[in-house]
Amino acid sequence: MRPGPSLGGGTPLRGLDEDEILARILPTFPHSRDLIVPPGDDASVLRTGERTIATTDTVVLGRDWLDEWSSGADIGHKVIAQNLADIAAMGGRPTGVLLTLVADPDISMEWVQDHARGIAEACSAAGVAVLGGDLSSAPAGVVMVSVTALGVLEGEPVLRSGACPGHVVAVNGSLGLAAAGLMLLAANRAERHTTAVDRQRRPRPPLSAGPQAAAAGASAMLDVSDGLLRDGGRIARASRVVIDLDPEALEADIARVSEAVGQEAARECVLAGGEEHSLLATFPAGRMPPGWRVIGGVRALASGENPEIFVGGVPQQVTGWDHFRG
Amino acid sequence: MRPGPSLGGGTPLRGLDEDEILARILPTFPHSRDLIVPPGDDASVLRTGERTIATTDTVVLGRDWLDEWSSGADIGHKVIAQNLADIAAMGGRPTGVLLTLVADPDISMEWVQDHARGIAEACSAAGVAVLGGDLSSAPAGVVMVSVTALGVLEGEPVLRSGACPGHVVAVNGSLGLAAAGLMLLAANRAERHTTAVDRQRRPRPPLSAGPQAAAAGASAMLDVSDGLLRDGGRIARASRVVIDLDPEALEADIARVSEAVGQEAARECVLAGGEEHSLLATFPAGRMPPGWRVIGGVRALASGENPEIFVGGVPQQVTGWDHFRG
Repeated sequence: MRPGPSLGGGTPLRGLDEDEILARILPTFPHSRDLIVPPGDDASVLRTGERTIATTDTVVLGRDWLDEWSSGADIGHKVIAQNLADIAAMGGRPTGVLLTLVADPDISMEWVQDHARGIAEACSAAGVAVLGGDLSSAPAGVVMVSVTALGVLEGEPVLRSGACPGHVVAVNGSLGLAAAGLMLLAANRAERHTTAVDRQRRPRPPLSAGPQAAAAGASAMLDVSDGLLRDGGRIARASRVVIDLDPEALEADIARVSEAVGQEAARECVLAGGEEHSLLATFPAGRMPPGWRVIGGVRALASGENPEIFVGGVPQQVTGWDHFRG
Repeated sequence: MRPGPSLGGGTPLRGLDEDEILARILPTFPHSRDLIVPPGDDASVLRTGERTIATTDTVVLGRDWLDEWSSGADIGHKVIAQNLADIAAMGGRPTGVLLTLVADPDISMEWVQDHARGIAEACSAAGVAVLGGDLSSAPAGVVMVSVTALGVLEGEPVLRSGACPGHVVAVNGSLGLAAAGLMLLAANRAERHTTAVDRQRRPRPPLSAGPQAAAAGASAMLDVSDGLLRDGGRIARASRVVIDLDPEALEADIARVSEAVGQEAARECVLAGGEEHSLLATFPAGRMPPGWRVIGGVRALASGENPEIFVGGVPQQVTGWDHFRG
């Protein structure tokens, strides 16, 4: 049985004090041998390397998730995955996270515990320690989870700006499944393709592929959080090149997603679907490591041309979600 | 003229897209020579030492601040100060922060810019870089700022648990002023003592005193965020000792705060007032560095006695704010 929604049902946090709440969730969080001072003091202390990667990402009830579609544990998995994917996309290995929960005091303790379980599972699977956190009350109806992730970098960081003409464009992980899962949830047809729905609820970034790509010589990398076209366009603009995707190379992805949402929607999911958190990178010829597949190439800007993303030689109009314009 | 409140008045964020908003605030944020990859990619990269200190703290409109009492810049100063104080209280030097703003799209761009200015000022003053952030929309009426701070640790971390019988209890920085300022704001008498009101709006943790105390041999340390008695009690419990404060040593603090709120309230502000973010530490005899003043001593637990905070030999009842119980 899936746990109830965050608001309504169960034991409200209102009846508990902070120490009681923390006592129920802190013991579930993973430590690591690099955690010198665990949470509980003014701050925690983590053994680090010469360079530390840092990123932060937040999810808000009603904007980033609906209780009808995602359990507390799902949200825990998802917010950790999207933060760790950003560390991997720099070529780093995630080592720790800090967590913030700001919530209506009527949120249920059961939801919070389920959420903490999802966070703990996702962190444990990635070998990541929980370094600390903060718990704060919010106005009625508000539940918000903010995560900061830290990581170590062995080699050089892989930026978005290093793609060069002649490099291949490659992806590691699935495309379009999370978006297809969202469509199925919205259509109340989650049973049609459980893999797609599960990918929407619990993205699976190929974390170890990030440092491997960096070591192999990836020239640019990011994780596909806002869609292949939008994110590929970011590499094109940062690198001042044209990225041209090969439609044939995407056929297998579209076929897979078609099983969930049909052929036409599948193309849209693969090209524009966000929240997949697979890795997209460019490599000099012959440097692509195993586990990646080529989906296009990088070419130089023609005279007067703007950096842009193409599919099969055709420039693409890219639109996407904006937090404030909606 | 103070900027208008966050909600109502000015240009709403709703009319702008994320890139426009970021373009107006990111250039105001300080970098540092240790910032290898600045914000703008998937994550940033900071040069670190062998050990990294990490902490996170969040403020919420209506719970942690009121627009009538604090400008956007004030909130920027305050949320940075309270995070950096936690780094200093471990004996570390703060190096970077990550910022999250989750806000009603009707929040004004003017408030956001003023807030960013306060953050930039507080970070610049401390030599701290802005490593990244996240911007997200929230339900109507919600404005929330979450900060994660990172720092480096040269020596050993100073925990709450190291106080030993015979050590002195000392403070660096003021006591009770921030609480007195809050009382004046609530009574609509801010003009009576601008120093107290300013300390409430913009706490001034003695950041460099943290690493200095660590180097001098401080045995326990924290920052006074929830009041001298409550925070002192935390050292007592973590160290399993009795901390006995000397009422005479606190007379000068009480006299100073009396100018703002009168004698009786001043005693309460000095003993129980939070948000001051001065440092409270214990030192072995003869090890206290300049800038600190002794306000009490540490003694062993008598048989059957609980770790506790005393004032002049009398155990103190400590109550305080709880986020969920209120």
